[in-house]
Amino acid sequence: MLSAVEQGTVSINDAVSKLRHLPFEDLGFAKIDHHRGVRCGIPEVIYCEGKTIDQVVQIFSARMQTGGNVLGTRADVKVAEAIQAVHPKTEYNALGRTVTLRQQEAKPSKGTIAIVAAGTSDLPVAEEAKATAEIMDQRTATFYDVGVAGLHRLLSQSEAIQQAAVVIVTAGMEGALASVVGGLVSVPVIAVPTSVGYGASFGGIAPLLTMLNSCAAGVSVVNIDNGFNAGYIATLINRASDRTE
Amino acid sequence: MLSAVEQGTVSINDAVSKLRHLPFEDLGFAKIDHHRGVRCGIPEVIYCEGKTIDQVVQIFSARMQTGGNVLGTRADVKVAEAIQAVHPKTEYNALGRTVTLRQQEAKPSKGTIAIVAAGTSDLPVAEEAKATAEIMDQRTATFYDVGVAGLHRLLSQSEAIQQAAVVIVTAGMEGALASVVGGLVSVPVIAVPTSVGYGASFGGIAPLLTMLNSCAAGVSVVNIDNGFNAGYIATLINRASDRTE
Amino acid sequence: MLSAVEQGTVSINDAVSKLRHLPFEDLGFAKIDHHRGVRCGIPEVIYCEGKTIDQVVQIFSARMQTGGNVLGTRADVKVAEAIQAVHPKTEYNALGRTVTLRQQEAKPSKGTIAIVAAGTSDLPVAEEAKATAEIMDQRTATFYDVGVAGLHRLLSQSEAIQQAAVVIVTAGMEGALASVVGGLVSVPVIAVPTSVGYGASFGGIAPLLTMLNSCAAGVSVVNIDNGFNAGYIATLINRASDRTE
Amino acid sequence: MLSAVEQGTVSINDAVSKLRHLPFEDLGFAKIDHHRGVRCGIPEVIYCEGKTIDQVVQIFSARMQTGGNVLGTRADVKVAEAIQAVHPKTEYNALGRTVTLRQQEAKPSKGTIAIVAAGTSDLPVAEEAKATAEIMDQRTATFYDVGVAGLHRLLSQSEAIQQAAVVIVTAGMEGALASVVGGLVSVPVIAVPTSVGYGASFGGIAPLLTMLNSCAAGVSVVNIDNGFNAGYIATLINRASDRTE
Amino acid sequence: MLSAVEQGTVSINDAVSKLRHLPFEDLGFAKIDHHRGVRCGIPEVIYCEGKTIDQVVQIFSARMQTGGNVLGTRADVKVAEAIQAVHPKTEYNALGRTVTLRQQEAKPSKGTIAIVAAGTSDLPVAEEAKATAEIMDQRTATFYDVGVAGLHRLLSQSEAIQQAAVVIVTAGMEGALASVVGGLVSVPVIAVPTSVGYGASFGGIAPLLTMLNSCAAGVSVVNIDNGFNAGYIATLINRASDRTE
Amino acid sequence: MLSAVEQGTVSINDAVSKLRHLPFEDLGFAKIDHHRGVRCGIPEVIYCEGKTIDQVVQIFSARMQTGGNVLGTRADVKVAEAIQAVHPKTEYNALGRTVTLRQQEAKPSKGTIAIVAAGTSDLPVAEEAKATAEIMDQRTATFYDVGVAGLHRLLSQSEAIQQAAVVIVTAGMEGALASVVGGLVSVPVIAVPTSVGYGASFGGIAPLLTMLNSCAAGVSVVNIDNGFNAGYIATLINRASDRTE
Amino acid sequence: MLSAVEQGTVSINDAVSKLRHLPFEDLGFAKIDHHRGVRCGIPEVIYCEGKTIDQVVQIFSARMQTGGNVLGTRADVKVAEAIQAVHPKTEYNALGRTVTLRQQEAKPSKGTIAIVAAGTSDLPVAEEAKATAEIMDQRTATFYDVGVAGLHRLLSQSEAIQQAAVVIVTAGMEGALASVVGGLVSVPVIAVPTSVGYGASFGGIAPLLTMLNSCAAGVSVVNIDNGFNAGYIATLINRASDRTE
Amino acid sequence: MLSAVEQGTVSINDAVSKLRHLPFEDLGFAKIDHHRGVRCGIPEVIYCEGKTIDQVVQIFSARMQTGGNVLGTRADVKVAEAIQAVHPKTEYNALGRTVTLRQQEAKPSKGTIAIVAAGTSDLPVAEEAKATAEIMDQRTATFYDVGVAGLHRLLSQSEAIQQAAVVIVTAGMEGALASVVGGLVSVPVIAVPTSVGYGASFGGIAPLLTMLNSCAAGVSVVNIDNGFNAGYIATLINRASDRTE
Repeated sequence: MLSAVEQGTVSINDAVSKLRHLPFEDLGFAKIDHHRGVRCGIPEVIYCEGKTIDQVVQIFSARMQTGGNVLGTRADVKVAEAIQAVHPKTEYNALGRTVTLRQQEAKPSKGTIAIVAAGTSDLPVAEEAKATAEIMDQRTATFYDVGVAGLHRLLSQSEAIQQAAVVIVTAGMEGALASVVGGLVSVPVIAVPTSVGYGASFGGIAPLLTMLNSCAAGVSVVNIDNGFNAGYIATLINRASDRTE
Repeated sequence: MLSAVEQGTVSINDAVSKLRHLPFEDLGFAKIDHHRGVRCGIPEVIYCEGKTIDQVVQIFSARMQTGGNVLGTRADVKVAEAIQAVHPKTEYNALGRTVTLRQQEAKPSKGTIAIVAAGTSDLPVAEEAKATAEIMDQRTATFYDVGVAGLHRLLSQSEAIQQAAVVIVTAGMEGALASVVGGLVSVPVIAVPTSVGYGASFGGIAPLLTMLNSCAAGVSVVNIDNGFNAGYIATLINRASDRTE
Repeated sequence: MLSAVEQGTVSINDAVSKLRHLPFEDLGFAKIDHHRGVRCGIPEVIYCEGKTIDQVVQIFSARMQTGGNVLGTRADVKVAEAIQAVHPKTEYNALGRTVTLRQQEAKPSKGTIAIVAAGTSDLPVAEEAKATAEIMDQRTATFYDVGVAGLHRLLSQSEAIQQAAVVIVTAGMEGALASVVGGLVSVPVIAVPTSVGYGASFGGIAPLLTMLNSCAAGVSVVNIDNGFNAGYIATLINRASDRTE
Repeated sequence: MLSAVEQGTVSINDAVSKLRHLPFEDLGFAKIDHHRGVRCGIPEVIYCEGKTIDQVVQIFSARMQTGGNVLGTRADVKVAEAIQAVHPKTEYNALGRTVTLRQQEAKPSKGTIAIVAAGTSDLPVAEEAKATAEIMDQRTATFYDVGVAGLHRLLSQSEAIQQAAVVIVTAGMEGALASVVGGLVSVPVIAVPTSVGYGASFGGIAPLLTMLNSCAAGVSVVNIDNGFNAGYIATLINRASDRTE
Repeated sequence: MLSAVEQGTVSINDAVSKLRHLPFEDLGFAKIDHHRGVRCGIPEVIYCEGKTIDQVVQIFSARMQTGGNVLGTRADVKVAEAIQAVHPKTEYNALGRTVTLRQQEAKPSKGTIAIVAAGTSDLPVAEEAKATAEIMDQRTATFYDVGVAGLHRLLSQSEAIQQAAVVIVTAGMEGALASVVGGLVSVPVIAVPTSVGYGASFGGIAPLLTMLNSCAAGVSVVNIDNGFNAGYIATLINRASDRTE
Repeated sequence: MLSAVEQGTVSINDAVSKLRHLPFEDLGFAKIDHHRGVRCGIPEVIYCEGKTIDQVVQIFSARMQTGGNVLGTRADVKVAEAIQAVHPKTEYNALGRTVTLRQQEAKPSKGTIAIVAAGTSDLPVAEEAKATAEIMDQRTATFYDVGVAGLHRLLSQSEAIQQAAVVIVTAGMEGALASVVGGLVSVPVIAVPTSVGYGASFGGIAPLLTMLNSCAAGVSVVNIDNGFNAGYIATLINRASDRTE
Repeated sequence: MLSAVEQGTVSINDAVSKLRHLPFEDLGFAKIDHHRGVRCGIPEVIYCEGKTIDQVVQIFSARMQTGGNVLGTRADVKVAEAIQAVHPKTEYNALGRTVTLRQQEAKPSKGTIAIVAAGTSDLPVAEEAKATAEIMDQRTATFYDVGVAGLHRLLSQSEAIQQAAVVIVTAGMEGALASVVGGLVSVPVIAVPTSVGYGASFGGIAPLLTMLNSCAAGVSVVNIDNGFNAGYIATLINRASDRTE
Repeated sequence: MLSAVEQGTVSINDAVSKLRHLPFEDLGFAKIDHHRGVRCGIPEVIYCEGKTIDQVVQIFSARMQTGGNVLGTRADVKVAEAIQAVHPKTEYNALGRTVTLRQQEAKPSKGTIAIVAAGTSDLPVAEEAKATAEIMDQRTATFYDVGVAGLHRLLSQSEAIQQAAVVIVTAGMEGALASVVGGLVSVPVIAVPTSVGYGASFGGIAPLLTMLNSCAAGVSVVNIDNGFNAGYIATLINRASDRTE
């Protein structure tokens, strides 16, 4: 645009005006930002919790207009049904509480994201990560219920996990799984503490601290229960590694 | 004594008086309690930190009078040398900061206490536990530097660890080792969080929470850095199991 | 199995395959591990909280197949009734919220586990510990409502408590009971902080800290409200001591 | 003064002026308030920590001018010696770190304040309470090293403790002593958590929470290590009760 | 009893037996302790929260048998109505959530307990303290809605507050009232933090810390929302001071 | 009044009496303070949460009597409707949960208060601030959904924000917006952390700490979710600056 | 600059280059930003703590070049002397640990900033605020040692405090002073918690929470011990109000 | 090895023995693990803090034997000099406290790791990350002193930052920089909270929470001050992306 100004094809006022109003659309209560998706091949994302069903449906419909894929996270079954009533092609992952609409043809990644979960109760977070990665065209492989108290379950899968280009580990209670997996692989590990547990688990603080203090180098951490961010980061990493294989 | 009172051999006043002054000896600033050792074969214990060298030496000498073994914990090298100057038979474990004096003939236990430490920095606590157990006549076997980031180091020792009658696990940073060991053995595990670590380790809170939330049943926890208590509890457990083998 | 491979009776591929799939059974959303029970005489355990009634019933039925005893913890009355509808021989401890099914003949322990509770509100946790110990064939003796504010209530029972081979102490509010009991006995004490209390009790943090800092040696701690783990550890300890009496 | 104004003997301006400057004396960096002592028979108090030796000596000298007793708390030995060099009649309690100067004739209270301390390390706080109470003319009786891990030591003194009009309990580590004493007596108990302990004691938070959650009614709490306030409150209570005996 | 044993009028076995069963009555799930009330003129107290209506009514009826006054705290309106249906003479303080039954003739104290509350939302705690004190025969005077943001409201009452023999201060939010009142009076102040407030009040932690750190000597603190204990302690203090006026 | 006393037109007793009873009105359960509003042009404010609908309506009616504007905060829709049924001229801001009644003619400020909100979920707090400022006659300009993750949205508005005389920033999650805005403007910034977020946001602690530690000078902070106080402070600041433009 | 580009007087490359290097100067380890001072009449500020003496002197010299006033905060006496050796005109406030150099003629504000401090130990923070405000040309008035425990000291000054255009309150321990002052004045109050105190003061957390939860509207809070920011904000506020008087 | 066993070239006993002793070397107090470096091209790493100078030199020498590069972290100047005395080719980064020895020929990565630091005080952590990445053959580009309070400094560099394949952000105080950078780039961001700051920064907790709660997707977090882990993770990510460019 600076070039356009220099050449006189765009006046300064217009340039300033455009810069101010674009690349997002101001819908009054929210500024819809089409910028990132256009630039990066990232889906439109809606965090559904704390919004009314009507609001979610409205935003979902608006976001579809870009023609990109759409992802709704933290969507309970009522929200999902309301969206599906209007947009029947959406898919609902009840465990991961995600609603997805694929509008772009899939170009599956070559590399794989391993998603490892300590216990059955960690599956909602693991599935949120999985749905996020998949709507971004990633191959995933899941390794569930392999907590460290029964190490043979994990070890029997370790060779398969070592094939992955990046690993997501979700664990609640004491969160020790991230350290153990971190020691088994040579690729980046994204650790997600979950709020599973009771007593001195403190809604996820215990596994959060465990993971931050992991003695295995290569482990970074996202917020408690934030499967979406883990799936998103793993995708960014895998896209890079994918190109080479 | 109630019997003695009934038979008239002890007057009420004398009985009350004795009850008040026994079985501990009032030294003004401290009440020396010979009761427990007599009853349970427990050594005289002195927590040296926060006492002057003179005080420690005085108390050490006083405790020796019972004829039992004596254990000083948290003793730095100056304290140790001051005691050894007076009582040359005492032994100093510089790593575990313990001073011990054996006055009772050793009757080594049959069963073994395994002492497992995640990293080199956890050794002071592990050694404190070891010295405590040994002055109480326990056989011990140590497994050091077997943290979960290099799982093969631990697994190569797992068979040996499984021989133990009770296991002590000391770990700082994220403390995941307790859960992994807890899953490998079928005997009680005493977990000791250590204040080793930095950042969000918070002086041992991170491994403390990890261990309390361990997904492996059979793990109980003692205070941060409290190797003495771990060795003490392990001994109580092993004494019972020892009789049968 | 290594031997079998050497002798050629098992091919490498088969060996790897078996190692991967055994000794647990992969039911998709959970890996049922029959390993521990077979090895250690430990019951099948189901943590019911956070699972649907249908899920619990399904898992309960699956676990029964091993022929071992089955223990469901944190089971509310609806869960219990649903299980009993299918398996009428199960017993429900409404206070401790446990469902138990005995399939193995009982071999009562000789030694006894003392279960000491500070107040009436601590009974659910105490009863969970009791049910856990009993399904693992332990004799138990309960000492309820003996909080330290009325010390004579505790002291009148102290001789009986001293008979036990191991002691479980459950207490909320300030949790001082563990220290007092720890000073009265010469056997291991397992302390369970409970979330009973209000104000600055912080859901069990106050008694947790109290117990971790206990001035009485011999006290180790499990997670807040974790009666199951206390009962489990006490059983491991008592099994050893039991053999000798 | 309102009367004086009405009668015209004091002008409004003077009245306002006096109100502004009295009953305290403005020394620039501090306002010396002689009000309370005059009204209540309370000594002049100086908190020495964080002040230079010169400052302490200056303030001490200034406060003496009122003719009341003077109490300096948190005074290390250098501070004490500097004061004594100028005012040889002051007394130093090295354990409690208090400097006292008695200028008023003592009128010993009839009732007694019992000061109970769990361990040797709690003595500095206990002695600070004692010195505070004594400079305010209270009789005190000390019961030291009676922690709950050796209950017989406490019980042997319980009758004597029950004679007191008010009880101060100082305890670190887990602080359980306050609850036990609270259950033994029928008078107010002032509990002082001390920063003694290590690991999860957190500089006194553990005993603070223990004491706040005490299951024994009648226990109130002051700040960590605040022996001065405990002694002060106990004096206020005892003064009232003292008049009647 | 020792005397009786010496004289032979009571056998040892009987003595031991009595000591074990008295002075409390073992009702299975609770040990009813009539000891304290008999000794100290203290009412029977029932903490109703967390008990079923039936349990409360049963216990209330049992406690009445001693002939002493009865106090139920944390009683919601349904509990109160259930008790009143059986015992019509009980009185209900809906604001303070207390149920009281007076069976002993009142002997009003001479001295007065001032109960000071910062805001309207602190009244439930203040009224619990008031009901507790009154069933123990104390005169009370209330000073409500005198928070420090409108200092003139407090100052207009300060002379009246200064008449009291002991002062209870209840305050939530920042809890500054305790310090200000502590500076106005020369008698003991019992501070009760309340869980009133939002944001960084953290359920009462903010005023709790404020009160513990009060710069005014003479202030001690009880647990968050614990109006009962404040009323109880104030009564113990006032009883002493009352005898003299 | 001192003058009146001097001149004899008011007796001392009357003066004292008036001082005690004024300028607030004692309604038993609350002291209605008309003092501040009269003095400062501040509206009557009612915090509705935790009060019954009847109580709120009663207080609202009482406060109207002063003839000043009235503001009810934290009013849900039922409360609002109950007030409107009685006082139809009141207006309800459903998003900000405020009820306002304007009885004084508006004198709009010249300067403007900018209200900046990071995300849609922060709007309730932003709107509470806005309603507070507006009932106090302030011009406001809102800049919503300009969180730092899409910096261009904020930067496109920065010139407009720089026009304001004072800026309010509301943000949850990590609260970084306050620092960024603080760096863009040269006027005071009032930061309001909101309890929006999940995981390690801890109900607003994360943005509270972020804002307190802001590297941009000029940022001060109010309590979590306290839009009212932010609007109130911004008004006090703007009133001063307004006079000059 | 956009205009310059349009007119062709500046090439795009040059423009981009300038934008990158201006308005700050890149000194390698720090980017000296002359932007703010130029725009707002703000002094150059150096936070001295954690820098070597040489570094501070170098930066101080560099900042002087702008010709504006210079303020160094957290400067201990050695740092101050090193600066004064090079720049003899700098002034050192030993209590507030500030070094100031005035290069611009002072234009004293008409309005006054009141700086109120609870105790002598809060003076360093109060003086830091004072020095900050004064180098920015503000009139200040100090009210020291007026903590709420001796309310008459504060009240005797309240009329004078009410003259100020903005008030800074510094207080440690329980921090109640901010609420009391907030109730006395009708102008913005900036509260600064100080790390003064011991026990449960937790390095300033107690007064921080107190101030955040202040029941007096109009109080906002800055970071613990951050006298600089308080002085800075107060100046921003006063500048606006000053223009009108 | 299983193959070797099947073919009979390795006996079972030998296999078991090798498995137990390899691929790590047991030096008594530490198990040197050459496994990872061999497999992944990772340098030998020594965490120097908490070790004696002699220990560090010994370990450094031992690790050199593998022929790989060696990295010592948290090395103060004395440690560095001691190593250099023995191994003159080592290089010391005084700011980042790293000692490095390059023994493998460098193969510089094509992609670049951007290292962004908020303030001068964050440089030690940033430099630790840089040294870690560089000894692992990564190109790095540093962007220092670009904190969000002066946004133009960051924005002037944003194009350059956007060239990187992965970005490391180090920030103390409030840590807002990670969110802002996260919004500017489309590659993974590794955020490192630093312990820089004072007051309510709590040794890095404030920026840690900020970063965990970042509203910008794509940001993951490592432990406070853990520049090494950030550099290590960034390298793992960049290696993958590097292959493709």
